[in-house]
Amino acid sequence: MTAPPGCVFLLSDYGQRDEFAGVLRAVVAREAPGATIVDLTHDVPMFDVRAGALVLERCVASLGRGVVLAVVDPGVGTSRRAVAVAVAAAGPSGRPAPSFLVGPDNGLLGWALARLGGAVAAVELTQPPGSSATFDGRDVFAPAAAALWRGRPLDSLGRAVDPAELAALTRPLVERGQDWVRAEVLAVDRFGNVELAAAADATPSGPGPHIALAGGRSHPVRRVRTFAELAAGEVGLIVDSAGHLALVCDRASAATVLGVQPTDVVTVRGAAP
Amino acid sequence: MTAPPGCVFLLSDYGQRDEFAGVLRAVVAREAPGATIVDLTHDVPMFDVRAGALVLERCVASLGRGVVLAVVDPGVGTSRRAVAVAVAAAGPSGRPAPSFLVGPDNGLLGWALARLGGAVAAVELTQPPGSSATFDGRDVFAPAAAALWRGRPLDSLGRAVDPAELAALTRPLVERGQDWVRAEVLAVDRFGNVELAAAADATPSGPGPHIALAGGRSHPVRRVRTFAELAAGEVGLIVDSAGHLALVCDRASAATVLGVQPTDVVTVRGAAP
Amino acid sequence: MTAPPGCVFLLSDYGQRDEFAGVLRAVVAREAPGATIVDLTHDVPMFDVRAGALVLERCVASLGRGVVLAVVDPGVGTSRRAVAVAVAAAGPSGRPAPSFLVGPDNGLLGWALARLGGAVAAVELTQPPGSSATFDGRDVFAPAAAALWRGRPLDSLGRAVDPAELAALTRPLVERGQDWVRAEVLAVDRFGNVELAAAADATPSGPGPHIALAGGRSHPVRRVRTFAELAAGEVGLIVDSAGHLALVCDRASAATVLGVQPTDVVTVRGAAP
Repeated sequence: MTAPPGCVFLLSDYGQRDEFAGVLRAVVAREAPGATIVDLTHDVPMFDVRAGALVLERCVASLGRGVVLAVVDPGVGTSRRAVAVAVAAAGPSGRPAPSFLVGPDNGLLGWALARLGGAVAAVELTQPPGSSATFDGRDVFAPAAAALWRGRPLDSLGRAVDPAELAALTRPLVERGQDWVRAEVLAVDRFGNVELAAAADATPSGPGPHIALAGGRSHPVRRVRTFAELAAGEVGLIVDSAGHLALVCDRASAATVLGVQPTDVVTVRGAAP
Repeated sequence: MTAPPGCVFLLSDYGQRDEFAGVLRAVVAREAPGATIVDLTHDVPMFDVRAGALVLERCVASLGRGVVLAVVDPGVGTSRRAVAVAVAAAGPSGRPAPSFLVGPDNGLLGWALARLGGAVAAVELTQPPGSSATFDGRDVFAPAAAALWRGRPLDSLGRAVDPAELAALTRPLVERGQDWVRAEVLAVDRFGNVELAAAADATPSGPGPHIALAGGRSHPVRRVRTFAELAAGEVGLIVDSAGHLALVCDRASAATVLGVQPTDVVTVRGAAP
Repeated sequence: MTAPPGCVFLLSDYGQRDEFAGVLRAVVAREAPGATIVDLTHDVPMFDVRAGALVLERCVASLGRGVVLAVVDPGVGTSRRAVAVAVAAAGPSGRPAPSFLVGPDNGLLGWALARLGGAVAAVELTQPPGSSATFDGRDVFAPAAAALWRGRPLDSLGRAVDPAELAALTRPLVERGQDWVRAEVLAVDRFGNVELAAAADATPSGPGPHIALAGGRSHPVRRVRTFAELAAGEVGLIVDSAGHLALVCDRASAATVLGVQPTDVVTVRGAAP
């Protein structure tokens, strides 16, 4: 097996204010000299495996060759497995894509793996001697990701695991009727844009649309293509850059206007309720 | 045209908590393998083109060879142009400097361009097929910056644009009298230092200086060279690292002490009022 | 002297929202083309030399070859010296380690230096002509770190300084009795984990342990190896990834539960009080 060229991509909930993300970078740089290290984000909400899995899923289509190292790991030190997973050599569209994903086996990697065409092999990573019980990013995941980047064979890093047995998260809620879609809020970004679990093709037809919120409230929304088409205070329904329906305002927070947050469920109707 | 060696420099208002800046880095790494990617900052205040233009202007004298990719872009997806601009081969001082700037044509690039000696050519970037309407950083700007870094000719990236027609922002307010200067607050940094639009040579002569604030208030300030010369609670007038006058405290926030923020206007007088 | 291969490691209190850390990166990239630049963190609490020294000490065992550039520098521009320090060629364990540390001579570098086996030579860095009085990171430290990375001899960068005369900080408080240890809180991380100055071997024996807090309060703690062993609301005593005793909760902030912050002193007793 030849070394996968390219990058080591990092994602975690380590934040910026401590040295944890920096140590992750330093260990990769030490063990994989010459690798381009790309921080995807280290600001996944703390302990939120689901949010991390969604972020990784949104990123993965933009990644070129390399190894993904992802750590959102409230079970660090317990019997949850540390894993490295190989994906098919090329991305689904035939363009360059990561060859390996490394992280805790808690569902974090699953949706990104699916986007990459699924796992072809997996191993449970062997804990190096002298490892801390609380910083597998430094002691287990970063050395493994660097070793894979250098071309070390996957099966030398631990015991083989059936990829079908990797932990999986429940898919976010999406339900569709003729002129409505009900969907979980996946994420609220820095700008207050509200991403829904529904894909673009779920846009309800009809004169509306309106959205129904918790507590019987409802709010008119307008289908637009860009933020700038919206008037002040108006809420738009767009297709976002990940291909999802999203509720947005122009230079304002739709999440604040609507009072919604991740895991809330909203209904978008094509006709006024 | 040979490839400009060096870096791809990134600046945006994408923040750290989402994956947007990470995706920008990943696309550059994928399309410009081997490039050194340098984050200038991704924490420009949201939608604040003027603040972003000021940050880029402050950075640009420190940059070596490469391509600048800047995105503060409330008009994404509208008819505002996406542009790439070539600057003269060497910086004004003859030392290495970026060769190209890429970003929205909304004034963001203008002051940095001027510091680099001005534009020698510009193109309106062609939107790649399948682009999202909301993430030109990923779909338009990063691929263009990477292509320029690889040495692709500017004129292959889009339709030529007259550099004189690039959007420009109004210069910040600076007015001078014999013993006073009135200037807009350009920025308040993490430490609470208050940078004024006035340059060092605008320091008023006279016995004291005082500063006049909004609402008829005034505050004594002392000319100093370093923070540590100031007593607790005292406000100093220094020449900051960008060559601007700035109001500062020692290990405290002058912005809080004075109650000022960006776009406020303050008057510095050489004599007590 | 040949060029030290490897990385330039950056640590500062510059934060993320301004361009300061970005300018540091850009200057290193300009002056040390090809260097891998590794941000350890730029979010050391402002002006907090002691916190920065502790972060650097925690990082240093993970660093491979290269040059450390650290800036937490409230005395910038004053007579405090800017220094570059050479350490023994290999780390104490014989594995790759940084060769040089660069920063202000205010104690920031001392504990990391000690971990690396101590200084073998030091110079006071010459201020380049035209330097600002407020941004030695850009004007003094980054150019020096880059020059050392390129292989420029240490003694060409300034006047030799006796390493024994470098500024030192007072060690954090640790006192031990037969079944108790009293220790300063070194740090509270993003997750609310409370790191104590005491090392793992200071764990008190006895049935408890309990911790005694300020104001006569006390709180039971349980010795655990991982976060996940703790029930909701329970406080654990673990050995953290730096080998220190730490007070932690599972997916919650021990610092909040206990009401402690850095520089507080807590007593851990093996027996109930």
